[in-house]
Amino acid sequence: MNPVTIIEKKKRGERLNRDEVGGMIDGYLQGRIKDYQMAALLMAIWFRGMTHEEVADLTETMVRSGQTLHLGPDKQRRVDKHSTGGVGDKVSIALAPLAAACGLRVPMLSGRSLGHTGGTLDKLESIPGYRSQLTPEEMEAVVRKVGCFICGQTDRVAPADRKIYALRDVTGTVDCIPLIVSSILSKKLSEDIAGLVMDVKYGSGAFMRTLAAARGLARALKRTGERLGLRIKALLTPMEEPLGYAVGNALEVIEAVDLLKGDGPHDLLEVTRALAGEMVLLGGIRRNRADALRLVDERIASGAAFRVFKKWVRHQGGSLDFRRRDLGLNLAPRRRDFASNRNGIINRIDAREVGQITVDLGGGRRLLEDKINHGVGIVFHKKVGDRVRNEEAICTIYASDEQSSEMAAERLKSVVVVGKKSLRIKHGRIEKV
Amino acid sequence: MNPVTIIEKKKRGERLNRDEVGGMIDGYLQGRIKDYQMAALLMAIWFRGMTHEEVADLTETMVRSGQTLHLGPDKQRRVDKHSTGGVGDKVSIALAPLAAACGLRVPMLSGRSLGHTGGTLDKLESIPGYRSQLTPEEMEAVVRKVGCFICGQTDRVAPADRKIYALRDVTGTVDCIPLIVSSILSKKLSEDIAGLVMDVKYGSGAFMRTLAAARGLARALKRTGERLGLRIKALLTPMEEPLGYAVGNALEVIEAVDLLKGDGPHDLLEVTRALAGEMVLLGGIRRNRADALRLVDERIASGAAFRVFKKWVRHQGGSLDFRRRDLGLNLAPRRRDFASNRNGIINRIDAREVGQITVDLGGGRRLLEDKINHGVGIVFHKKVGDRVRNEEAICTIYASDEQSSEMAAERLKSVVVVGKKSLRIKHGRIEKV
Repeated sequence: MNPVTIIEKKKRGERLNRDEVGGMIDGYLQGRIKDYQMAALLMAIWFRGMTHEEVADLTETMVRSGQTLHLGPDKQRRVDKHSTGGVGDKVSIALAPLAAACGLRVPMLSGRSLGHTGGTLDKLESIPGYRSQLTPEEMEAVVRKVGCFICGQTDRVAPADRKIYALRDVTGTVDCIPLIVSSILSKKLSEDIAGLVMDVKYGSGAFMRTLAAARGLARALKRTGERLGLRIKALLTPMEEPLGYAVGNALEVIEAVDLLKGDGPHDLLEVTRALAGEMVLLGGIRRNRADALRLVDERIASGAAFRVFKKWVRHQGGSLDFRRRDLGLNLAPRRRDFASNRNGIINRIDAREVGQITVDLGGGRRLLEDKINHGVGIVFHKKVGDRVRNEEAICTIYASDEQSSEMAAERLKSVVVVGKKSLRIKHGRIEKV
Repeated sequence: MNPVTIIEKKKRGERLNRDEVGGMIDGYLQGRIKDYQMAALLMAIWFRGMTHEEVADLTETMVRSGQTLHLGPDKQRRVDKHSTGGVGDKVSIALAPLAAACGLRVPMLSGRSLGHTGGTLDKLESIPGYRSQLTPEEMEAVVRKVGCFICGQTDRVAPADRKIYALRDVTGTVDCIPLIVSSILSKKLSEDIAGLVMDVKYGSGAFMRTLAAARGLARALKRTGERLGLRIKALLTPMEEPLGYAVGNALEVIEAVDLLKGDGPHDLLEVTRALAGEMVLLGGIRRNRADALRLVDERIASGAAFRVFKKWVRHQGGSLDFRRRDLGLNLAPRRRDFASNRNGIINRIDAREVGQITVDLGGGRRLLEDKINHGVGIVFHKKVGDRVRNEEAICTIYASDEQSSEMAAERLKSVVVVGKKSLRIKHGRIEKV
């Protein structure tokens, strides 16, 4: 197989067959196809797109390139959730034990932060002792005993995706639906699950800026997933302001625990509950949405979900002190309030900028090899639409030093907009696909 | 400068400014921009094209990346010719001394064969002793004493073009007008010439299959050249059947000498004469086309062009025996006639296939590092439109062994089409741009 012939075929807009897709991916992993050839192919795919068959072939080849989990019978109850990433998105940390408490099995392979969005693994690593890398045997043991785990994918899961993702990042080919779909699904199909709930976020803080783009991605995910035997439900959720009040790794763990204790912020609860409800339906635990949501609410109210959370964290080596408000996490020492300079209504808190400020406080990565400071971040006391008085605190900044604290305060001035009147604020609604 | 930002800009169809184009090319040559990033950019350029400003910026950057010749005053009379390549295209070998005999100075940096088309340097290297690599000082001396030289470009001429061309070849981005234009012109602008005549070939044996595509390339070359101070005249010439009768390196040298001796095939003479006429006009030797062509014809008829040829080859170290019909060249030993199996008219001799058979006889390269057998090839005795009798020879195959000779004869059966009647054969005309 001549790689140039394949590149030119896609360049001219022709379909690649299963052997051609497979040959390129396998050849790339084995080094016969070079980085520059894969880069040219990816750019041609950006322009020409891929048919559903091509995306399915690509996804299957990437799954086949690596190891898949084998979690035994009872596959119907194994359901996972994936989010396209947002600011303040700590949903997974509450959702995995909540879904497990509802009788599901959640084998969640998760990722790290890059860009302005956080990563679930980084958040969990703020817990002392938490082991974010498990062997396949450990994964199987934890999900059997607890009902869920959250850990990083090993080098052996979908290595073709890992290699191609790194290349996309440096060749301007990240924003490409067929490539996004195959990347997400190749990892999820390696988890030996029957169902997947997707949280496709849209808005300022999300990868997809518009509802239309999010809908396109959701539909493509659904179609390819179903072709490959994975049932998918997608929720489109808004991400204009940060989700919940807390942004920053350790701070977000605390807020996730608040939710499981029945004390979570309204918007975070709404998204988590909706996702959990869909998972319960997909896993066949309940037959209709009202029953599913009733079960979810009950497992929070009864403390069952919180008990699973504690058991799960302990099984992955983490220790938290639940008598303390900060759970014994190592929060950043410099704290300063950022206050309003007028009476008014919060009109806007730009999620992307808040995410970027958190990265610059040390809470995220600019390069994949950057070290993260888990204790930094921002805790808001207000959300968009809330009334605020002159000199009243809008949020508290957690920084490691005075200089970065000042940087954050300075930048927040343009990120948080306080108006005299309440604008007709367009609150995004959760939409199902 | 972030290369990903530049790639994404072009990907979205935005113009790159001079700094961005220059930064990518310089960065690539210096290794800061990686092969895979350049590959992605080239593919984005394939889809989005480039404005005339962008092509000019790209070309200038590639010229600036290397050494340029300095051939002294009298630049007005320095005119070169470049062909996009065809089968049996030995024009340069006759044209350079012919133009020199007309009073021009022709510093011709030429290339090697790749694919089904031949390369002038390979043809000249069939001459014993011919030195195809000259130092800049030698180039200057030869062109001053003789009026022309033909040699390979050194590593130091337009190295950015060399690196990018090699990458295009393996990433499916060869057929892209802005990249072709900048590649050709960057080399020619390094020659310190005032004018350039382009032979843009179209048809089966050419890189451009259609007249429309050839016209598009010719116009783009003209516009970019003129923006950079190089006067360009382009001729569009047909390439359905091989040019002349001979295909193969040494065989083509013999035919070029025939032409200079006043005994060249009609079609080869027509193209060579037309190109020489345009060069004479560009160099200001004559004011109108009729006078220019009269001068060209006179320099062939008087033997002046042939004398320059002999002097030039001697100055580049080559020795030919002009008393012998084969000029003392080492022609392949296995010769076999390929005969017609019916009475009729030659309807078609597919140039591309003849070129490919010659490559497979050993006369061309499949890979850049392949060694060439200079003595092999095919000499036709008929051209399209000629009458042929049953069992009359259509051509003679020159092969190094029996096996390849048979291969060639077998393939020629489908390459040469003899019909009962003369088709209304569409003879392409030479068109000026």
